[in-house]
Amino acid sequence: MKTIILKKQVIKIFLKFGLSKEHASISANALINAELVGAYGHGLSRLKMYCDRISKKVINPKPKIKVKKISQSLSHVDANNSIGFVAADVGIKTAINHAQKTGIGMVAIKGSGHYGLSGYYAEQAVKKNLITMIYTNAPPAVAPHGALKSLFGTNPICFGAPTGTKIPFILDTSISMINRGKIRVAARNNQKIPEGVALDKFGKPTNDAKKALAGVQLPIAGFRGSGLAWMVDILSGVITGGNHAGRVKDPFDDFSGPQNIGHLFITFKSNLFQKNYKQRIHDNIRTIKKLPKIKGIKEIMYPGQNKFLRYKKNLNKEIYIPSIIKKDLKDLIS
Amino acid sequence: MKTIILKKQVIKIFLKFGLSKEHASISANALINAELVGAYGHGLSRLKMYCDRISKKVINPKPKIKVKKISQSLSHVDANNSIGFVAADVGIKTAINHAQKTGIGMVAIKGSGHYGLSGYYAEQAVKKNLITMIYTNAPPAVAPHGALKSLFGTNPICFGAPTGTKIPFILDTSISMINRGKIRVAARNNQKIPEGVALDKFGKPTNDAKKALAGVQLPIAGFRGSGLAWMVDILSGVITGGNHAGRVKDPFDDFSGPQNIGHLFITFKSNLFQKNYKQRIHDNIRTIKKLPKIKGIKEIMYPGQNKFLRYKKNLNKEIYIPSIIKKDLKDLIS
Repeated sequence: MKTIILKKQVIKIFLKFGLSKEHASISANALINAELVGAYGHGLSRLKMYCDRISKKVINPKPKIKVKKISQSLSHVDANNSIGFVAADVGIKTAINHAQKTGIGMVAIKGSGHYGLSGYYAEQAVKKNLITMIYTNAPPAVAPHGALKSLFGTNPICFGAPTGTKIPFILDTSISMINRGKIRVAARNNQKIPEGVALDKFGKPTNDAKKALAGVQLPIAGFRGSGLAWMVDILSGVITGGNHAGRVKDPFDDFSGPQNIGHLFITFKSNLFQKNYKQRIHDNIRTIKKLPKIKGIKEIMYPGQNKFLRYKKNLNKEIYIPSIIKKDLKDLIS
Repeated sequence: MKTIILKKQVIKIFLKFGLSKEHASISANALINAELVGAYGHGLSRLKMYCDRISKKVINPKPKIKVKKISQSLSHVDANNSIGFVAADVGIKTAINHAQKTGIGMVAIKGSGHYGLSGYYAEQAVKKNLITMIYTNAPPAVAPHGALKSLFGTNPICFGAPTGTKIPFILDTSISMINRGKIRVAARNNQKIPEGVALDKFGKPTNDAKKALAGVQLPIAGFRGSGLAWMVDILSGVITGGNHAGRVKDPFDDFSGPQNIGHLFITFKSNLFQKNYKQRIHDNIRTIKKLPKIKGIKEIMYPGQNKFLRYKKNLNKEIYIPSIIKKDLKDLIS
């Protein structure tokens, strides 16, 4: 399907479910961006879930979002259980504004929901020549080191930096061995997942996507990854007023209340300390790309580079829509 | 040896090598803290190296450290090739000061050297009820994903948060499978290192510590760890004015010039957004500790907890000093 037609359909669906024109457009853009960068677990596969949550009144389609300004650099946002895209849009725009005025900005959000890809918001800050760090928590998926039960989300760590080129440096890495969205897509399509990334509910290794969803995802690097996940839970949940310690509800399975996810956006000017930042980052990337490579590797890619290239490539193609999602679109629009 | 006697000896040595009383004391405290927490690779095993670098004029024992205040929240420090401990002491104290005044502080440092454990500085901020994030780069040890040559340092990611108890939450994790300091200690003591953490200079797996030092350390979690290391290189090197892209010299082997390491300290008040932060973090930790445990695990520990308990235990004991370090002390003091 052509991107522009798809976008119109998604907007129409969100409008039908009560979102304002502006919020429908923000949400459609984020979902379609996920499709274009190939992050299907954060794309249209979630559209029905968002609509279901609105129908069941656990996402507020007409939120009254409050931005409390603490200082010229600091704000706290209560997203009033908005769809996550809208909360994050307010968050990153406010953080950009703070950094542009004072050099540095930090915005904490509570009362939000799943917002898709952190990297999508990081890109917006990087386009303004800012460096950014973004944290969000998520429903239980990964067991703390030593525990037999999932509690941490896949809690991504996101970092963006301008490169002086059109392709930003965007690291957006979950602290689990595999993204939960990918397991979800595999489960929907009856595909296997790799070995060593998840355990079933009895604590046994599994490559069955459905069993993995019912079980435990493994963190990267044992106690190190577990520690990073805990850090993200503190940064996005404990300090913001969002849910934490495993209390973020699974958006697909648990309609007993809003998710109350928290996010944290930190932004600062890339040339705060070094006026020739662009020259320095250019030199940094060039030096690393010139290293001798492992056999079979054509180019050492920086984080975000592959995603950007996929985006560019997909932008001129029609978006492939699996039949299961075609059905979602048809059901939701009618 | 008793801690107090050891400290006097180390101070005497640093004074002999030209440090001021204040700088000698700061440096001795950091080194002895590393011994007490059991991080021997950052302790006395490095004392001779620091003195050698002073003798060879690549550490400046009498630095003129310049602190350039950019705003009430932001400072840039030129450490004038001081010993790293002293630069970091200025950095964290300045960052604490900023956060106490405005809620948030960020301090970038250039012209520094190896400063030991990031967690040691994080503790100082956490004692003031601040949350802190600390980044530093280091000599090449880890190959970027796809490269056949080391370039990134073990580039630790450090995060500290108050817990409302005497034991702070201090995550201080290198992005390599093993700390370079541990390999160095193993090499000095002719011990093996674990499998799967390093390659020799030909790209083959090795558990020989000396071969690993000449070869490549592996990052945690493949491209994810490589991306995190790259992030730390940008945050501590590119933006600060410090060396980056593999140009930080190995302090033990390369006396051709100062290291010019960069550091970044971010601090902010833990109760910026939620007045009941202490109650929230207490609840967070308690909830996680209550999870069912893997067989053999008595308690789920948060990052920094084990290190603190080791510190407490060691504080009342004499510090064990291996004969090779006894010789260093004797040679340096005479």
